[in-house]
Amino acid sequence: MKHLIDILDLSKEEIDELISVAEDIIENPAKYSEKCRGKKLATLFYEPSTRTRLSFESAMYELGGNVIGFSEAGSSSAAKGESVADTARTVECFADIIAMRHPKEGAPLVAAQSVSIPVINAGDGSHNHPTQTLTDLLTIKREKGRLDHLTIGCCGDLKFGRTVHSLISAMSRYDNVEFVLISPEELMIPEHLRTDVLIKNNIPFTETTSLEEAMPKLDILYMTRVQRERFFNEADYVRLKDSYILTPDKLSNAKKDLSILHPLPRVNEISVEIDSDPRACYFKQVLCGKYIRMALILNLLGVN
Amino acid sequence: MKHLIDILDLSKEEIDELISVAEDIIENPAKYSEKCRGKKLATLFYEPSTRTRLSFESAMYELGGNVIGFSEAGSSSAAKGESVADTARTVECFADIIAMRHPKEGAPLVAAQSVSIPVINAGDGSHNHPTQTLTDLLTIKREKGRLDHLTIGCCGDLKFGRTVHSLISAMSRYDNVEFVLISPEELMIPEHLRTDVLIKNNIPFTETTSLEEAMPKLDILYMTRVQRERFFNEADYVRLKDSYILTPDKLSNAKKDLSILHPLPRVNEISVEIDSDPRACYFKQVLCGKYIRMALILNLLGVN
Amino acid sequence: MKHLIDILDLSKEEIDELISVAEDIIENPAKYSEKCRGKKLATLFYEPSTRTRLSFESAMYELGGNVIGFSEAGSSSAAKGESVADTARTVECFADIIAMRHPKEGAPLVAAQSVSIPVINAGDGSHNHPTQTLTDLLTIKREKGRLDHLTIGCCGDLKFGRTVHSLISAMSRYDNVEFVLISPEELMIPEHLRTDVLIKNNIPFTETTSLEEAMPKLDILYMTRVQRERFFNEADYVRLKDSYILTPDKLSNAKKDLSILHPLPRVNEISVEIDSDPRACYFKQVLCGKYIRMALILNLLGVN
Repeated sequence: MKHLIDILDLSKEEIDELISVAEDIIENPAKYSEKCRGKKLATLFYEPSTRTRLSFESAMYELGGNVIGFSEAGSSSAAKGESVADTARTVECFADIIAMRHPKEGAPLVAAQSVSIPVINAGDGSHNHPTQTLTDLLTIKREKGRLDHLTIGCCGDLKFGRTVHSLISAMSRYDNVEFVLISPEELMIPEHLRTDVLIKNNIPFTETTSLEEAMPKLDILYMTRVQRERFFNEADYVRLKDSYILTPDKLSNAKKDLSILHPLPRVNEISVEIDSDPRACYFKQVLCGKYIRMALILNLLGVN
Repeated sequence: MKHLIDILDLSKEEIDELISVAEDIIENPAKYSEKCRGKKLATLFYEPSTRTRLSFESAMYELGGNVIGFSEAGSSSAAKGESVADTARTVECFADIIAMRHPKEGAPLVAAQSVSIPVINAGDGSHNHPTQTLTDLLTIKREKGRLDHLTIGCCGDLKFGRTVHSLISAMSRYDNVEFVLISPEELMIPEHLRTDVLIKNNIPFTETTSLEEAMPKLDILYMTRVQRERFFNEADYVRLKDSYILTPDKLSNAKKDLSILHPLPRVNEISVEIDSDPRACYFKQVLCGKYIRMALILNLLGVN
Repeated sequence: MKHLIDILDLSKEEIDELISVAEDIIENPAKYSEKCRGKKLATLFYEPSTRTRLSFESAMYELGGNVIGFSEAGSSSAAKGESVADTARTVECFADIIAMRHPKEGAPLVAAQSVSIPVINAGDGSHNHPTQTLTDLLTIKREKGRLDHLTIGCCGDLKFGRTVHSLISAMSRYDNVEFVLISPEELMIPEHLRTDVLIKNNIPFTETTSLEEAMPKLDILYMTRVQRERFFNEADYVRLKDSYILTPDKLSNAKKDLSILHPLPRVNEISVEIDSDPRACYFKQVLCGKYIRMALILNLLGVN
């Protein structure tokens, strides 16, 4: 492994190894606190993303390293017309590893092809966001003790939600995983995912518009937001939106050990009343995001 | 003490303890240079404030810690509609202590109620800015050797100036403190401060529109800016503004050991000719700001 | 040396000393990794410049120090009307050394005159950018082994390009340096540079509009961009622009050991096909920029 651009760049074994290192970091943080002393992470964020940026930065600091970078394109050389490749080659002179967020698909790949230091895709447009998927996998592993034999509900915008697409792709490689896909008709998963990932690999899945009906069988509920701008008309949005907002009553027939995930930020798609429910895992998920990024940085830098 | 939201959260004894630690840091900086090794401060600045942000950041670095954060709302998750509570709970996964600046009153309190790490209010709207008040108190202590038996002049915009309100509230708890309140009629202190703080506690005070008349009796002169937009009509502003600009001639009948404070930034309310006068303390005040924040961070983190 | 505002503040001997330290850092980076432990650099960038800012920041981190600052004026106190002098005096309370970028000529000088810590001009308007010139000199020294006996071609916008002006001024002090000035008629070097630097010091130079004709005799080719907005009419720009774009065919009659420099960012004035030519030195130049800034910080802080 040299760069991380797409979650499918990683084999199941490589993911297991990252999860294993992350769990060791959680158990023995002091052991890792100087591992990256003298090393620098560059966070090149061409569009703002506080959560992801701070997760990477705190990960690097907890490894004893330092951080340079920018948090939006306006204060970068991009504003002067510099190409992503040139910026990456420049930053290569200053840092040991790059985490790049970019509104255009493929920009982190271009950077990776231009430099000899590792590049991590920290989200490129609506395309890939592999460290979010690693975060989700570590969270599931810690909550359930396993990544196989799980029934996973994905709820909300399954058409445009890249985190759901990556999660389905990544989880499809584990044994006995079943998906329940819960969304309005307008926001069902794209055909290529249904055909090339689920059907092709014989992954059992059902599609439904009802969160309540799906709830009882779920081990994991992965919530995403239904955005107003995704609908052709306001009437449909108003009619449907409440169906995909998680409230305590919708949890009445859920499993006792359900784990509720959300990539955050949420707006209103999970009621704040749920936050104190032990099944709410979305803030634990944020913490998992830091630890898996620590494991990833160590791996890509070849630090043991 | 767990959070610092309002200066009145602190007892006199707690303030004395913070000042005492700050003075020890000033005497023995090396003793403190590794106290926060491995710890992280998050500076969540929803509105820009270079001075306050850099003061916190340098404080944390001088304690051996690290800093993450953002310097304006535009590059934060707030732009995506995330609540302050959710952002705080997220940042809690990355940092050991939060300093929050927010244009809305109460936002740091909401953050404090949402997390289990300490939250420092670094200014919320026109409401509170307790570390500025601690800065002012440390500066007075260092200049005068005491916080009691002082005649304190507050000059300029006493109606909207939050730093003056907090200073009056905090200093009212010390013995034999007298206030001289110098402002245009339009910008006198609010009634609740006059009634509930000064009169109720039997604090002697006088109100005047003349800086020159007030000058001879002052031990401390706390200057603030008279902003054009506070006046109903331009004519009043033009007529009055020069009365509240400190120039060398206005100091002619001042005490030899007067201490001039200002929360900064200043625009033109203190003439630059004053800067070289030994009575000018506003840049020493900036330095005090760093040391009292170091003391506060140590206290809230429970580091000895 | 106390501040670095203009490249001509430095004697030849001081430049040689900085280059010598930079080369020692390149050879023995570990020796320097803790030299600035406990010290802080403030990067006060009133206009964005990713490359220069990250170069300074990585330089300070590689010396074991820390960094505070801002990357654009919008998040600074300047937005509240604070003077550069006041900001500098404030930052002096937080940091040990300042690197300032400002759109207005003379701002870093004002800062230097206001504080007792070293100030480095990191670019002030179209005026000075001395650390770029130091970068260029170190690059030439490392590529050629010397700073004298060189024929240096400067190509592109020689009228407004501050990096070229500083390079010519600095290189004019070395023996047997000859310049070939390649530009459209509209963008020839300013008269004061021709008269007061080149002619006055008897520096041999030729002026030409043809890059191809100049090429064979050059040891160094310093490229800059010809900007559309510098031309009075679009027709001239369109007619001329390709003449000053470096492509592989224009290198056909160049020396085998030519060194191609560019201050970056480039837009299209050097074809990306040149990047893999061993004569392309502009990314090595970025690396030199970091090392010379490390040497400069050490020198100004008086650290051995």
